[in-house]
Amino acid sequence: MRIVLIGAGNVATHLGCALYAAGHQIAQVYSRTDESARLLADRIGAIPTSNIRDVVSDAEIYIISLKDDVVGDVIASLCPTREKALFVHTAGSLPMNIFVGKVQRYGVIYPMQTFSKKKSLDIHAVSFFIEASDTDALCTLRTLVEGFSTHVYEMSSDNRKYLHLAAVFACNFVNHCFDLSARILQPYGIPFDAMLPLIEETVKKVHDMAPHEAQTGPAARHDEKVIEMQSQLLSNDTLMQDIYNRMSQSILLSSCKQEK
Amino acid sequence: MRIVLIGAGNVATHLGCALYAAGHQIAQVYSRTDESARLLADRIGAIPTSNIRDVVSDAEIYIISLKDDVVGDVIASLCPTREKALFVHTAGSLPMNIFVGKVQRYGVIYPMQTFSKKKSLDIHAVSFFIEASDTDALCTLRTLVEGFSTHVYEMSSDNRKYLHLAAVFACNFVNHCFDLSARILQPYGIPFDAMLPLIEETVKKVHDMAPHEAQTGPAARHDEKVIEMQSQLLSNDTLMQDIYNRMSQSILLSSCKQEK
Repeated sequence: MRIVLIGAGNVATHLGCALYAAGHQIAQVYSRTDESARLLADRIGAIPTSNIRDVVSDAEIYIISLKDDVVGDVIASLCPTREKALFVHTAGSLPMNIFVGKVQRYGVIYPMQTFSKKKSLDIHAVSFFIEASDTDALCTLRTLVEGFSTHVYEMSSDNRKYLHLAAVFACNFVNHCFDLSARILQPYGIPFDAMLPLIEETVKKVHDMAPHEAQTGPAARHDEKVIEMQSQLLSNDTLMQDIYNRMSQSILLSSCKQEK
Repeated sequence: MRIVLIGAGNVATHLGCALYAAGHQIAQVYSRTDESARLLADRIGAIPTSNIRDVVSDAEIYIISLKDDVVGDVIASLCPTREKALFVHTAGSLPMNIFVGKVQRYGVIYPMQTFSKKKSLDIHAVSFFIEASDTDALCTLRTLVEGFSTHVYEMSSDNRKYLHLAAVFACNFVNHCFDLSARILQPYGIPFDAMLPLIEETVKKVHDMAPHEAQTGPAARHDEKVIEMQSQLLSNDTLMQDIYNRMSQSILLSSCKQEK
């Protein structure tokens, strides 16, 4: 397949490398900056461009992996002269129907994973959620993604919204809890690595039991004195204190519901 | 050593089993309820009791593993007639000085791990933070804990407070994020297990890079439209929506600081 990648961020990088390794021709990589376009293009034998007007018109598939709030503008620039091409976006939170009336064949490839350019990962273990305008486009996307992943599922835009929101909690917010933990330890010279055995065990537990069963800590024990004392330790950072208070309140409420 | 366990919860259970396996005599297990005292006592050859007045007076060490807010009352009941014994608590958030003036020799054994009675774990990999009233008591606690763990560190009450708070973020709040994620998925018939590869990768990343470098998601991308849309999806649960908003705001702020 002759593919153009619109975007050169975390998702475009991992997806582009997987497609290239699976034998596809990545004709071009577009990015807002020359440097990031070139960085990815060089890795996958593509031509870089930072000018949207220079994007070629003869690709079979255009894969848009950009920040959600610029996808609309890029569709408005690219679709009008490429009505026959298959257009795809990779955003968990955008519906497929943003392509309606712009092109005839379109779809979504949502990889549910946390990608960082610097960190390689096994793309075969990533779950991909796909959706398309018609059976033929769906078949094309399935074949494309099955070239590098064995976990390919169909999912509607409506359900994908909630899947993406759940992923934000299970990944982005979890990582931010790690970051806040590291920030608390830093003044006391305790390296964040000291937390890794605790974190490993926390994750091991949810392989064997539901998260609500695995809940421990002061809030799960309804230990209000500890909650109050720990909240006070954060009084010089009201946002972190707010997060502490609301998370504790939410755990308290959850554990009350469980006990009933 | 002849030891009495005051408490039969998650920490007392794992600690008691480790001490028993290391060859110590667990004379008694006290718990508020007969059933939980018996459940643990039966596993470690001890006598159960649910009456604080029946606790034996001739043990060398009394280990108190109770909810923080009842530890004070138990100390008031037990210490007066046992001034020569070594008293220890296992709470991350309580200072050692709660024993001052009550007994002569005292200390803290804080295991930084998430324990569930139902889930076995490798106690050797748990980090234990100890503190004691004097060199002799410290030596006793170190020998005791080194019987089953190779990770034994001295830590002051002041620093342990922050260590415990950091552990609440890295473990209890992380697990609650998993729970909220499961709750979002539930109405759509998506099992929480679908999140496990994403969670594994989230944790793998913080072995290789600092959490703030590993941050991804809508807030890290400053994707305010997605944040607003996802927040709206939670409008029927104001507490979860509040958590979503504040976590997003905190990630946004952190990533601004990084970029500066």
